[in-house]
Amino acid sequence: MTIEAQVSRRGGRDARRIIRTAPKVEMLPTLKRGLPVIEPMDAEQVERIHEASLAILEEVGVVFRDPIALEDWKRAGADVRGERVHLDRALVMDLIKTIPPDIEYFARNPAKNVQLGGPNSIFVPMTGAPYMRDLDDVRRGPTIADLGTFHKLAHMMPALHSSAHHIVEPMDIVVAHRHLHITYSSMKHSDKIFMGMTTSPKNAEDVLDMCEILFGEGFMETHAVTTGNCNGNSPLVWDQVMLGAMRAFCRRNQPVLCSPFVLGGANTPASTAAAVAQLNAEALSALAYTQVIRKGCPAIYGHYLSTVSMQSGAPMAGTPEISLMNFMIGQMARRYNVPWRTSNLLGGAKIFDAQAGYESAMTMMAVLMSGANYIWHSAGWNEAGMHCSIAKFVVDAEVCAMGYRMTQGIQWGDFDEALAAVRDVGPGGHYLGHPHTQANFERAFFIPKLFDNNSIEQWKVDGAKDIKQRALDHAKHLLGEYQEPTLDQAKDEELRVYIDRRSREIPAVDALNEDH
Amino acid sequence: MTIEAQVSRRGGRDARRIIRTAPKVEMLPTLKRGLPVIEPMDAEQVERIHEASLAILEEVGVVFRDPIALEDWKRAGADVRGERVHLDRALVMDLIKTIPPDIEYFARNPAKNVQLGGPNSIFVPMTGAPYMRDLDDVRRGPTIADLGTFHKLAHMMPALHSSAHHIVEPMDIVVAHRHLHITYSSMKHSDKIFMGMTTSPKNAEDVLDMCEILFGEGFMETHAVTTGNCNGNSPLVWDQVMLGAMRAFCRRNQPVLCSPFVLGGANTPASTAAAVAQLNAEALSALAYTQVIRKGCPAIYGHYLSTVSMQSGAPMAGTPEISLMNFMIGQMARRYNVPWRTSNLLGGAKIFDAQAGYESAMTMMAVLMSGANYIWHSAGWNEAGMHCSIAKFVVDAEVCAMGYRMTQGIQWGDFDEALAAVRDVGPGGHYLGHPHTQANFERAFFIPKLFDNNSIEQWKVDGAKDIKQRALDHAKHLLGEYQEPTLDQAKDEELRVYIDRRSREIPAVDALNEDH
Repeated sequence: MTIEAQVSRRGGRDARRIIRTAPKVEMLPTLKRGLPVIEPMDAEQVERIHEASLAILEEVGVVFRDPIALEDWKRAGADVRGERVHLDRALVMDLIKTIPPDIEYFARNPAKNVQLGGPNSIFVPMTGAPYMRDLDDVRRGPTIADLGTFHKLAHMMPALHSSAHHIVEPMDIVVAHRHLHITYSSMKHSDKIFMGMTTSPKNAEDVLDMCEILFGEGFMETHAVTTGNCNGNSPLVWDQVMLGAMRAFCRRNQPVLCSPFVLGGANTPASTAAAVAQLNAEALSALAYTQVIRKGCPAIYGHYLSTVSMQSGAPMAGTPEISLMNFMIGQMARRYNVPWRTSNLLGGAKIFDAQAGYESAMTMMAVLMSGANYIWHSAGWNEAGMHCSIAKFVVDAEVCAMGYRMTQGIQWGDFDEALAAVRDVGPGGHYLGHPHTQANFERAFFIPKLFDNNSIEQWKVDGAKDIKQRALDHAKHLLGEYQEPTLDQAKDEELRVYIDRRSREIPAVDALNEDH
Repeated sequence: MTIEAQVSRRGGRDARRIIRTAPKVEMLPTLKRGLPVIEPMDAEQVERIHEASLAILEEVGVVFRDPIALEDWKRAGADVRGERVHLDRALVMDLIKTIPPDIEYFARNPAKNVQLGGPNSIFVPMTGAPYMRDLDDVRRGPTIADLGTFHKLAHMMPALHSSAHHIVEPMDIVVAHRHLHITYSSMKHSDKIFMGMTTSPKNAEDVLDMCEILFGEGFMETHAVTTGNCNGNSPLVWDQVMLGAMRAFCRRNQPVLCSPFVLGGANTPASTAAAVAQLNAEALSALAYTQVIRKGCPAIYGHYLSTVSMQSGAPMAGTPEISLMNFMIGQMARRYNVPWRTSNLLGGAKIFDAQAGYESAMTMMAVLMSGANYIWHSAGWNEAGMHCSIAKFVVDAEVCAMGYRMTQGIQWGDFDEALAAVRDVGPGGHYLGHPHTQANFERAFFIPKLFDNNSIEQWKVDGAKDIKQRALDHAKHLLGEYQEPTLDQAKDEELRVYIDRRSREIPAVDALNEDH
């Protein structure tokens, strides 16, 4: 039920109370960048990477572990030797040129539609965590109810543009049926866009069927409503599950992220430039395949990218080379005029301590300077993705709002008016009482709610809470205020019927594929 | 005594032990950037700020609360009305053009000389904290011994290029004598460059006299060996203490930071663009005055910059507008071809929690993208500068090393060799055993020591420590390994004699001026 509907059903006092206490769940529109990007490569260096990638595709080739894809490639004119597909440059470049440079995403609430590509970017929360840190910061296995909690929070955080999908893995649902309940949770708890599970080709079909129920028959033929992620197995391998899911999405004209899964130094050379050349070859091979599946279907240049600790082999976050590679990948994606995805606010810390803060912010700042469009994993990621933290989720989402503001660039609209204040106030004066200040302060300067900027004395009076505790308090408050964005009753019913039927049809044993 | 000298004086076994356990205190050379800067303004917008600043200088004027400066300005041809100096554009631009675009700093150890200006940047630790968080994370008033501890750590952290000056305020020394003991501590515990106190014109003279003892008579006439900071009182006021100290430094040809002290929205208009126009006018007025004092003396475009919370009036850190203003100020300083200073790794958190991490890293990434040369407050700053934290100090210094690596840009030297590894390894292979990986891993990928990237199981085995605890352990370890970089005995003696004499001469009552 909408607030207005509730108000109209109740009396005056109640109504006023509801309106007064109703949380503001306005979403920030698509981030349209007003800040230049960082481009560490000159045109010649971009071509050097491009040429190296094409040479890898031609001479080394890419393994497609999937008979259908191998047949598709043969028909498309590629040089297929066993499972290895050698792609010549003319074929690759010819294929990727039909990828649309921009995507408009449609949400069930049209006010939450967003754009992607060029200067347009969106923030999407993390997904895929097998553990969570809950409202008491306890690390434990998540349930479908916990996933609902994250979807509610994603719905309420203004800078998040999507509710994603399995932010945490609902361990209380059998693997084979999870995709159904995850998708329903995304659709039910938020009216923002969401992601579609790619854990198997059949699961992908189920998700897309559910999208068809939500958006109506035929709508998806001409409108993007969800996004699948297909991870590569770097170096230079795409597997059957991912390729099958890719086909399901592309055939229905829904975008997929073509995401090489790169652990710099472990599955790439120990060189940022060469790692990007390999990653770029991998991404190009999958992007090209999307156009073999369906010419003109939307697709996104993806990647998951980390560097690894030489000692432990563990992925790291916020390292200088991850930042540099993001800048470089941005240049490559722009060279091909394809929207691109990266990962945001990553932490390798086990707890929500200063390490997590440094890692996350270094990641975000580099991501924003790189010009990435689909900015995934933007809230909650810690412990190298092993858990999603509620505290970190709400802080990350606010930090995204800060990054959003920075990336919009400089506001010039009131420049002359503001300069007049300099004359009014003069040397030694102060501005807080000036009418221009009072009219413009909030618009001019971002004040983070979850960062404490009081004196230490005031902070002690307020309970001497660290940011984790303040964030958990805030999350509890938000959840208390949450109001479900009502789903059309007939569609809701149809979705439930679909889930029931498929749950009966699908044996409760299956394989699980992670995506990152 | 140097390690080599110790070795030659002792026997074989002792000698080997000393060499084996001697800490690596190599300093990274001057950061030479290989990454483009972020420039949010086009040429026309840069001129718009420039014109607005010149109009402020001409029409509003700047207050110089100092009779000598007012006389100097009259002689220089400025329009002086009472304390207010109106500077016409021809005069300002004519004056600032003699500021050298580059500075070479000389340290007592020539291996630690550094360059400043253009692509050359250095990291300098925070200064001026009235409180500290110590090796047990206890917040308390610092002593001269604590200051020594910070100078030792500054000496040992590779990415810090300076030991600065009063990192913490030595509360056990009377205010009037502090500058002597602070300067001695900087000189004694580290052989890197250091900063010079500007708490009064006479204090500045004492500091410069001590520099003359350290570097020899006449040396400073042609060599920069220290840096003074002169804060403005925004809006548009320079006071007598700062101007007097500025004269002391400029007359001896030593660089000063001309630093408007900007709290966006409180002492500037509520507009990033207009705040920068005011700050730029303030900086230009002081930069111009340095050239009135001594034509051709080095000077640095400075600022301390924050935005304030509307509720509490407290300065914030890492906000989007601080980042944007840094980008803009960089463009202005480059327009004038003058090296410039900013502040780094700032935190408003009361403790070393995730807030401090986010704030600090957002600050650093923006600073590095802005192209700042003199990157001050690069280690230890938290609680809006009210305390310096030992834990944060060592983490910040490592984060600077990460930022240093990123800002160097992409390494292309082994690109072809690394690409050959892609052919060797092929699809589905792994790189950790490849000779190129083994030869290049450490050089290719930064592995932060103080970030834990192990599994949660290993982290628990290691004591489940947060980064604060690991950092304090590391600081204790470093201090255990510290070896004093021996100061020439005659100079040391002369410095002590000087301090004794001045301590007798200066009454033990005086005013304290903070600098930031």
